[in-house]
Amino acid sequence: MDLAELVSRYDDRLRTDDFADVDASANGLQVGPDHREVESVAFAVDAAEQTVEAAADRGADLLVTHHGLSWGGIERVTGRQYDRIAPLVENDVALYVSHLPLDAHPQLGNAAGIADLLGLEDRESFGELGPEHVGQRGRAPDPIPTDRVRETLEAELDHFGQGVRVLDFGPERIEDVAVVTGSGVDWLDEAVESGADALITGEGKQKAYHEAREAGLTVFLGGHYATETFGVQSLQALADEWGLETTYIDAPTGL
Amino acid sequence: MDLAELVSRYDDRLRTDDFADVDASANGLQVGPDHREVESVAFAVDAAEQTVEAAADRGADLLVTHHGLSWGGIERVTGRQYDRIAPLVENDVALYVSHLPLDAHPQLGNAAGIADLLGLEDRESFGELGPEHVGQRGRAPDPIPTDRVRETLEAELDHFGQGVRVLDFGPERIEDVAVVTGSGVDWLDEAVESGADALITGEGKQKAYHEAREAGLTVFLGGHYATETFGVQSLQALADEWGLETTYIDAPTGL
Amino acid sequence: MDLAELVSRYDDRLRTDDFADVDASANGLQVGPDHREVESVAFAVDAAEQTVEAAADRGADLLVTHHGLSWGGIERVTGRQYDRIAPLVENDVALYVSHLPLDAHPQLGNAAGIADLLGLEDRESFGELGPEHVGQRGRAPDPIPTDRVRETLEAELDHFGQGVRVLDFGPERIEDVAVVTGSGVDWLDEAVESGADALITGEGKQKAYHEAREAGLTVFLGGHYATETFGVQSLQALADEWGLETTYIDAPTGL
Amino acid sequence: MDLAELVSRYDDRLRTDDFADVDASANGLQVGPDHREVESVAFAVDAAEQTVEAAADRGADLLVTHHGLSWGGIERVTGRQYDRIAPLVENDVALYVSHLPLDAHPQLGNAAGIADLLGLEDRESFGELGPEHVGQRGRAPDPIPTDRVRETLEAELDHFGQGVRVLDFGPERIEDVAVVTGSGVDWLDEAVESGADALITGEGKQKAYHEAREAGLTVFLGGHYATETFGVQSLQALADEWGLETTYIDAPTGL
Amino acid sequence: MDLAELVSRYDDRLRTDDFADVDASANGLQVGPDHREVESVAFAVDAAEQTVEAAADRGADLLVTHHGLSWGGIERVTGRQYDRIAPLVENDVALYVSHLPLDAHPQLGNAAGIADLLGLEDRESFGELGPEHVGQRGRAPDPIPTDRVRETLEAELDHFGQGVRVLDFGPERIEDVAVVTGSGVDWLDEAVESGADALITGEGKQKAYHEAREAGLTVFLGGHYATETFGVQSLQALADEWGLETTYIDAPTGL
Amino acid sequence: MDLAELVSRYDDRLRTDDFADVDASANGLQVGPDHREVESVAFAVDAAEQTVEAAADRGADLLVTHHGLSWGGIERVTGRQYDRIAPLVENDVALYVSHLPLDAHPQLGNAAGIADLLGLEDRESFGELGPEHVGQRGRAPDPIPTDRVRETLEAELDHFGQGVRVLDFGPERIEDVAVVTGSGVDWLDEAVESGADALITGEGKQKAYHEAREAGLTVFLGGHYATETFGVQSLQALADEWGLETTYIDAPTGL
Repeated sequence: MDLAELVSRYDDRLRTDDFADVDASANGLQVGPDHREVESVAFAVDAAEQTVEAAADRGADLLVTHHGLSWGGIERVTGRQYDRIAPLVENDVALYVSHLPLDAHPQLGNAAGIADLLGLEDRESFGELGPEHVGQRGRAPDPIPTDRVRETLEAELDHFGQGVRVLDFGPERIEDVAVVTGSGVDWLDEAVESGADALITGEGKQKAYHEAREAGLTVFLGGHYATETFGVQSLQALADEWGLETTYIDAPTGL
Repeated sequence: MDLAELVSRYDDRLRTDDFADVDASANGLQVGPDHREVESVAFAVDAAEQTVEAAADRGADLLVTHHGLSWGGIERVTGRQYDRIAPLVENDVALYVSHLPLDAHPQLGNAAGIADLLGLEDRESFGELGPEHVGQRGRAPDPIPTDRVRETLEAELDHFGQGVRVLDFGPERIEDVAVVTGSGVDWLDEAVESGADALITGEGKQKAYHEAREAGLTVFLGGHYATETFGVQSLQALADEWGLETTYIDAPTGL
Repeated sequence: MDLAELVSRYDDRLRTDDFADVDASANGLQVGPDHREVESVAFAVDAAEQTVEAAADRGADLLVTHHGLSWGGIERVTGRQYDRIAPLVENDVALYVSHLPLDAHPQLGNAAGIADLLGLEDRESFGELGPEHVGQRGRAPDPIPTDRVRETLEAELDHFGQGVRVLDFGPERIEDVAVVTGSGVDWLDEAVESGADALITGEGKQKAYHEAREAGLTVFLGGHYATETFGVQSLQALADEWGLETTYIDAPTGL
Repeated sequence: MDLAELVSRYDDRLRTDDFADVDASANGLQVGPDHREVESVAFAVDAAEQTVEAAADRGADLLVTHHGLSWGGIERVTGRQYDRIAPLVENDVALYVSHLPLDAHPQLGNAAGIADLLGLEDRESFGELGPEHVGQRGRAPDPIPTDRVRETLEAELDHFGQGVRVLDFGPERIEDVAVVTGSGVDWLDEAVESGADALITGEGKQKAYHEAREAGLTVFLGGHYATETFGVQSLQALADEWGLETTYIDAPTGL
Repeated sequence: MDLAELVSRYDDRLRTDDFADVDASANGLQVGPDHREVESVAFAVDAAEQTVEAAADRGADLLVTHHGLSWGGIERVTGRQYDRIAPLVENDVALYVSHLPLDAHPQLGNAAGIADLLGLEDRESFGELGPEHVGQRGRAPDPIPTDRVRETLEAELDHFGQGVRVLDFGPERIEDVAVVTGSGVDWLDEAVESGADALITGEGKQKAYHEAREAGLTVFLGGHYATETFGVQSLQALADEWGLETTYIDAPTGL
Repeated sequence: MDLAELVSRYDDRLRTDDFADVDASANGLQVGPDHREVESVAFAVDAAEQTVEAAADRGADLLVTHHGLSWGGIERVTGRQYDRIAPLVENDVALYVSHLPLDAHPQLGNAAGIADLLGLEDRESFGELGPEHVGQRGRAPDPIPTDRVRETLEAELDHFGQGVRVLDFGPERIEDVAVVTGSGVDWLDEAVESGADALITGEGKQKAYHEAREAGLTVFLGGHYATETFGVQSLQALADEWGLETTYIDAPTGL
């Protein structure tokens, strides 16, 4: 498939253009020529030397990641940027990135992946960012004890032997759940106002502890990397459907 | 001592005015009348309902914290803000805050506290933020094996049974160490450029993993709360010297 | 009635949200907890130590004012802010504020109150501010001599023995009248362009004299306080309808 | 004298360039050719049709005013701007403007004129605006009863039979006095912090009443026009010294 | 015809208001009184001393130009601005300006004039600027050899003996043509993306050479002045229709 | 020589850091690894596909240009950026850029090169841009007739058979000359105010014609490319001195 065609298909599905004003990430094709025949595609959470080299080793024509290289523009192709871009160029691997569009997508996205794990129903958009949302919200068919939620998440998410951290200030059983993967505690207030029992996210921040405590909200911290593997794997499944060779590069950060 | 006198002493020692343009926190007196007799002072890392109530319970006239309530202005004294400010006002407890000035202070500060733990010498300012710095840098008298650094930090910092996390990408022995407490991985590049072997900070962020890996820098993540108890305890020691009654409120967040 | 219910009723009637981007005032609930039983409500033009103390003395659970305490955020709860907020908190008096929404409201508002005094008909919005308006415009059933307008305003508005000031540069009889209460001479050009014979406002500014003179527009300066007592009294009438005890605190500034 | 020479002399004396970043007014020559022989100069507080026509009638080559025509740029030379600029151009009258530099000047300025009236001593700059000041502060040789201050101001300032307004919240006798002419109540806090007994200014604003009341500061409101005739008359005295014909155009606004 | 009526007719036809946010030029009436009887109108590309004096010499009541005097506000009516505005005022010549609205107009505009020269069909808007466009695009009925296009443009546009410059990197025959008159090479990328064979504009910029070369686009540089005489002549034709005396002032710059 | 050493030498000589806030160009190393052995260096005015490929063909390890690839950040390494960066990376050619620092340098710079051509003496900085300057000014030992200046420039600068364009509005003989290479007509006013007889620059802009005409200033337009070959050739001479192999890539744009 021509690279331009593949980029166009992903951009359409993910509504890339709609996030242009709210996302610092330059979503869509970040590195590559206008046209190139693509047969093999690699998928990873982060674009970094480790994942770029793995993609090249596996003979990929394209690497698709959630976190890319251009956040508000690349000032210089030097230092770390050179070390990441050079192996892309030298090995003819293009780079396609989808950050917030992939967090947010109600079927393909990272938050949707967490919601699927817990079997949440009555899904709706959550996590306002300008005119868009970056997460999902839903209800468990039956209220689930906090520990069971933690165990479910640990079973699916943990990579480094570190358990899922719980700020256990909400009700004993969790029914109404908000999800913003990655670094999502900035939406803690929205979770409280919307009546959620719990917020599931990746990384914590110091201020979240007291905010959750005072609001009586339970917060699950599953890890930034660990909560954001769902989206790129959904894009991999699409590429499989389209008849491309695909490979997933697992490079967990433990963060 | 009159509150105004105490505020003035702290502001002078901490150079509060010099940080006015670089710190979102409204440092100095955040809540309280112009004048009040202060006999007893409580100290805590965070200003939150839990610590405000503890200060009131212990009969403090003033609470001194590192993290305060006003970050760029309080839009409304409602919700969480009301719940934190009301017990201050009702119990006649004033609130004094020092954020970046207290991170940065070369003797009293949080980074200085970490540097003291490791016995670092040849100290200098580290962690540029506009015309100021927010951390410290120094050399160990002898190179220390990475594990020994971790053990030392764990012995002094850990509160919740969670070990200090290490991104172990630097040399086997650590000699040149940069410290920015709290959330300091944004200064990872400055650490690399300055030739440091390791950066010690509190919270991590997802992007730090690959940045440290590619730069060959070791990063110690000691916890945001755990790395920031030093500064307020230094201010407590000052208040002790000045003949005030003091008390420390330990309310760890585990984050 | 629960405070949240009362706040919600006022916000709906006044379209508080629609003015969020054009008004520096944080309209709506400015000080208070999320929930509180409200039986008695006090009303005043300004939120200041004088009116807050009067509200507390009269046993109010809530004070409703036109001018509040938060204009772009409260940097610190110290000095004047402490002296105003502390008696609210200590006496369990919440504060609800409506600035431009209350100037503008076509039935409840301040400009509408002036228009009612003069019996203006064919009312329409006047005083553009972004997508909203902050005043009213209408026609007298019969042209009124300038002196009669002044006398009518003085009879109703004056509080300190200072007459209504007139910049008498328009026609002898006034028919088409624009009203922006408070500090409204910035809309003098709009009044001229719209074909008004006169602009009624509260405070003057030096530059208004020559602008009115050159444009042939009559300007009535009725006093900032005096032209802005109508709105809060309309809100008082609503509270009366809703079965609450109410009281009006008259604290004229003479400005 | 050549116009360029006269402009250069005034700009030097008034430090026009130093106020470029803090004053919206385009100070210095606002209307006129690079060179013109100037024999006769008119002086007025405001540049408006009334004063421009008077200057032309009196045969002036230059009009010097405190309030000019360009406040952040003239978008179009139409409407009011045309009506003011056209008679300047048609009658070969140039326009020189000095706004804040003339408020502030320690000898020639408007605030200095008020301070002279009251015989204030130990003068210093007052009224911070960025790196500059816009007023003066000084001490009366002996404390003066508030009424005597009012009477002195009324005797010298009043033009329209309207007395000087007093917000009489300070001590009975006034000794330490801050002055910012025109619209100066925004410096009320600075007056309080500096320990002044009273602030003298021109126009009031609604919020000043409660601020003065709560701070225990007396505020005298002498009128915007009436407090700002001193500066242009000082410039007239300079022009007299330089051998030019001069005339003062008194066009009080009563505001 | 009254000036206000004429201004209103032009503003309506040119959609002046719609360009208010995207054009630095203050379009519409730039210099003149609200009302004036207009019998004779002069037209020119630039408002400058040369054209203003010519308009006055020919007894015009109004000068209509494409480039005016106010680009973001006139700071002072001195120097060059005085030399241009004074003869307008002294000779009772008003100034009407239409910059981007006149570049863009699909029938009256500058780009439309070029498109007419080449007989382009299937016209559509080209040259995005915020929500508006500033050029035109169309197809030649038959592909035209590049040299023929150049000859056609030279025959109609050249004024100073300087030929039309061609960056000849596109196909041998030109069919799909984008036009942005004046300084239009910033739309080179849009021309490439839209599939145009050539971009016709006025002035070049250094960076355009390599951009055109790499994109395989032919660029014709016909001169800024020479490509922008069409619009004002269209406005002249309208004035003729409305029964006014008109005159065209040709003052080519050769740029 | 190591790339880092060469970059450091150029940055020091050109004072690269001092221009960081005034130049949109990311001056210094724009593409390349931290370290690389450099033996051969190519020099060109523009970084574009044509010059990058020529540098690769000639076996250069580094290309040094005046115009680079990053003007405020590279949003994506795609399209034109990919076509320029990919051959750099694939052929191991680094890119060093110096824009305004190289225009401005009093000995090495582009403006200095023009000044040398005319033998100007008493050189000083010209062309204010924030705290820096981007050009030079000097006096001819004897006044030179305008035509002789033109002929001298044409003899040295012209590449495409297009003569140097002259806006001949100044004195017959030129003595005091200001130079800003490239696109420098924005400094026409500074040239007039400084008393220059002529401004020499590269590209013209439409508005310069009337500004020069009204000010009585002669403007020479020598071409953007043609006036900017001096600086990179000075850097080539330095590299020669340092013992590196060098080559100059002449790729004139005719603009």
